[in-house]
Amino acid sequence: MFFPESLKMNNKLPDIKTDFAAWYQEVVYQAELADQSPVRGCMVIRPYGWEIWENIKTVLDKRIKETGHQNAAFPLLIPESFLKKEAKHVEGFSPELAVVTHAGGNKLEEPLVVRPTSETIIHYMFAQWIRSWRDLPMKINQWCSVVRWEMRTRPFLRTTEFFWQEGHTAHETQEEALEEVKMMLDEYVKLAQNYLAIPVITGRKSESEKFAGADSTYTLEGIMQDGKALQMGTSHCISQTFAKAFNMAFQDREGKNSYPYLTSWGITTRLIGATVMTHGDEKGLVLPPKIAPFQVVIIPIILKDKKEEVLRKAQEIKEQLIKCGVRVHLDNDEHKTPGAKFYQWELKGVPLRIEIGPRDLQNGQVTLVDRLGILKQALTFDSLCDTVVISLEKLQHEMFSRAKLRLNQMLHKKAKLNDFAKELEGNSGAYQTGWCQSSECEAQLKQYKATIRCLLNEKTFEECFYCHKKNIVDIIVAKAY
Amino acid sequence: MFFPESLKMNNKLPDIKTDFAAWYQEVVYQAELADQSPVRGCMVIRPYGWEIWENIKTVLDKRIKETGHQNAAFPLLIPESFLKKEAKHVEGFSPELAVVTHAGGNKLEEPLVVRPTSETIIHYMFAQWIRSWRDLPMKINQWCSVVRWEMRTRPFLRTTEFFWQEGHTAHETQEEALEEVKMMLDEYVKLAQNYLAIPVITGRKSESEKFAGADSTYTLEGIMQDGKALQMGTSHCISQTFAKAFNMAFQDREGKNSYPYLTSWGITTRLIGATVMTHGDEKGLVLPPKIAPFQVVIIPIILKDKKEEVLRKAQEIKEQLIKCGVRVHLDNDEHKTPGAKFYQWELKGVPLRIEIGPRDLQNGQVTLVDRLGILKQALTFDSLCDTVVISLEKLQHEMFSRAKLRLNQMLHKKAKLNDFAKELEGNSGAYQTGWCQSSECEAQLKQYKATIRCLLNEKTFEECFYCHKKNIVDIIVAKAY
Repeated sequence: MFFPESLKMNNKLPDIKTDFAAWYQEVVYQAELADQSPVRGCMVIRPYGWEIWENIKTVLDKRIKETGHQNAAFPLLIPESFLKKEAKHVEGFSPELAVVTHAGGNKLEEPLVVRPTSETIIHYMFAQWIRSWRDLPMKINQWCSVVRWEMRTRPFLRTTEFFWQEGHTAHETQEEALEEVKMMLDEYVKLAQNYLAIPVITGRKSESEKFAGADSTYTLEGIMQDGKALQMGTSHCISQTFAKAFNMAFQDREGKNSYPYLTSWGITTRLIGATVMTHGDEKGLVLPPKIAPFQVVIIPIILKDKKEEVLRKAQEIKEQLIKCGVRVHLDNDEHKTPGAKFYQWELKGVPLRIEIGPRDLQNGQVTLVDRLGILKQALTFDSLCDTVVISLEKLQHEMFSRAKLRLNQMLHKKAKLNDFAKELEGNSGAYQTGWCQSSECEAQLKQYKATIRCLLNEKTFEECFYCHKKNIVDIIVAKAY
Repeated sequence: MFFPESLKMNNKLPDIKTDFAAWYQEVVYQAELADQSPVRGCMVIRPYGWEIWENIKTVLDKRIKETGHQNAAFPLLIPESFLKKEAKHVEGFSPELAVVTHAGGNKLEEPLVVRPTSETIIHYMFAQWIRSWRDLPMKINQWCSVVRWEMRTRPFLRTTEFFWQEGHTAHETQEEALEEVKMMLDEYVKLAQNYLAIPVITGRKSESEKFAGADSTYTLEGIMQDGKALQMGTSHCISQTFAKAFNMAFQDREGKNSYPYLTSWGITTRLIGATVMTHGDEKGLVLPPKIAPFQVVIIPIILKDKKEEVLRKAQEIKEQLIKCGVRVHLDNDEHKTPGAKFYQWELKGVPLRIEIGPRDLQNGQVTLVDRLGILKQALTFDSLCDTVVISLEKLQHEMFSRAKLRLNQMLHKKAKLNDFAKELEGNSGAYQTGWCQSSECEAQLKQYKATIRCLLNEKTFEECFYCHKKNIVDIIVAKAY
């Protein structure tokens, strides 16, 4: 286990209430989720952060496979001309591209772009593989990193290189494609709510906010502690212009030439940032048990007295918990005081802490403390596993409940822009309102640096928030990351 | 499950005995391990190939973690100047670099290279993290892809982009670093022999063949069916010039400034190529059960009679086998004949095939056939799981035994170059001989397009294979991929 000495020199965290942005950045670095890299806009994801990503990946990858998709790997470098085959796609991505112009000591005849997303190269391959309706549906997923040249970056939330999975599918009918898009959105919602303990709002994106080259984009949005929205994943019906641009014709059931209906969907390492911003507190991270690298940390209270026995028992407890399927770390570093360890592991957001000292040994018990501060209890050795497993479940639920409560408090229904314009300036949350679907009314939100986060599947207002014409669809408005 | 129609139009495989290279290429494409991509030198790894990689990754990742390493992620793009910090490193890699010169619509002040390997960026970060001997050892691993601009490429064996893991560690002492290098070499040997069923030869590389920037490189080499050697993984003691170039000074136990001893080690998607070339036959792939995507394929023999019952029983058997931890595929595609399915799944190298038809149903049994052609037996339903599990183990062992036998037949001891020069021209295997360690004698092998694959840890010859001076160390000579 590697925890650099430099950690000992931590500064106090900035105040989460008054300077959320600084708190976020510091907690990401101090808890060793990530570090700054010497490459502009890129971060290094450190082991503690990467393990969270691996846990997220394990959960989602299982579901991706269970829902009939297969993983594959496509080239990192894409011919520049591929991106130009679909007009809106190139318009959306060309300002963000990193371009390889030289390789093997020579100038390339055609530049290659580092993939910003893989629709183009995957659709090119789909065209090779799809000949008949019997080849459909084709359901492929890829775990990789992509590069988008961002001007302002923040660890996990917006980085030049980021990690994600990108699903790409092709279907016989539009209905089936839409079903796929909604199914994967639903999988993302389950991941967010049941594993990351982050409640989300779902809906369609407005025309101006959808993916470059999509017919429609569905999104899940979380509301962070500072009241800003965070897009946590998207699922797209891809325009048939892609299928045509890449010559993806196939012979349909009637023997005629048809083009498949395409989808793509993805979640990124941004989910780690979402978890930090949803659950963190003044002491640092608070990690949901289901994705925490360590669910339990054992801290032996080592005095001169009975040192060997305490360490032996601590080791025994560790092994016992591993057998029960608990991810556990025993911190037996003798160079650190228990106090320093408490501080460090609270900063790192470990859900449960077990303390064991000479007196506990004598009493045949340990002390169990949780990161939310809701329980501190003495446990006998024989009840340990059961209690730990149940406590982890309780914590997971409690974290979701708290986050859900806050989301509800932060989500306001307001009929008119005037009713929430001032509040928007103060960053106080998200607003459900009505919209006539005109881009003119949408543009009014710019002055508040707010956007339509999504179109809901309901209509509770009579009028548009700005022009007061008839409401067509309820929307969520918020500032966003 | 996706098996394109195009598969139906397979051509016969080239003859494995007379045209191994063509056979290899065709079997990779026809068995859908990989496909050609529109990007020069890059391939698409298709689901069937990627699943083999995922299985390899699962096995090795577990061992990497159990031996005390942690996964992390470092930037894909590296400042060009970083590669220049270590003279031999840049000399080795600069002809192969892909260079990003433009990004976000502007020319970059400093070009970025797409990582060919990550020593430089990881060492830069090590320098930030290592302050004291208490931060050591530092043991990091990364799963990713790297890009090296290769002139001649072959799927899996040599591609411009390839997938790998790269371990990077830092230690207080040289002894500890060497121990690490040998431990990881040993892990690779276990992976190759116990999982891929490929016997290997291990040893040190000669000066001319070692990694650009290493003090010493250890390798594992397999001998393929055509008699050529394939480097299957390497483990390096990295030169301390790296530690100095990247300012990695730390305070040692005596309070003095010291530089850590570094290692790196990696295996790549090349192992998939090694598996194909070691075990394949005239019918196609033969996959070792431990890494096969499907260990068993069930093929229902569907006649008009009792179709429903046969399909129901086939599904039942599938579920039964899944419960026993077997990876199984039920091929119930009604558009294909059983014969076409036999052909396809033999091509794809599935270790065991279960056939079940109306008559089997009546007799309360199925027919079990293995890919090596050593058994064809009737099995009663109740003995199914046990027999399948045992058969898979037997096949795994049998594959290793056969490969080991062939390796022994292909490995010849010869005292003088003249004794094996002619044979080298004919590609007939590997030669153990003596060497004085002079580069002049090593250079003599060039005319036969052969190289020293490794230096062994033994000395059975008196003289050097060329100059007849005193033998210092036995070597393995072969042509190589």
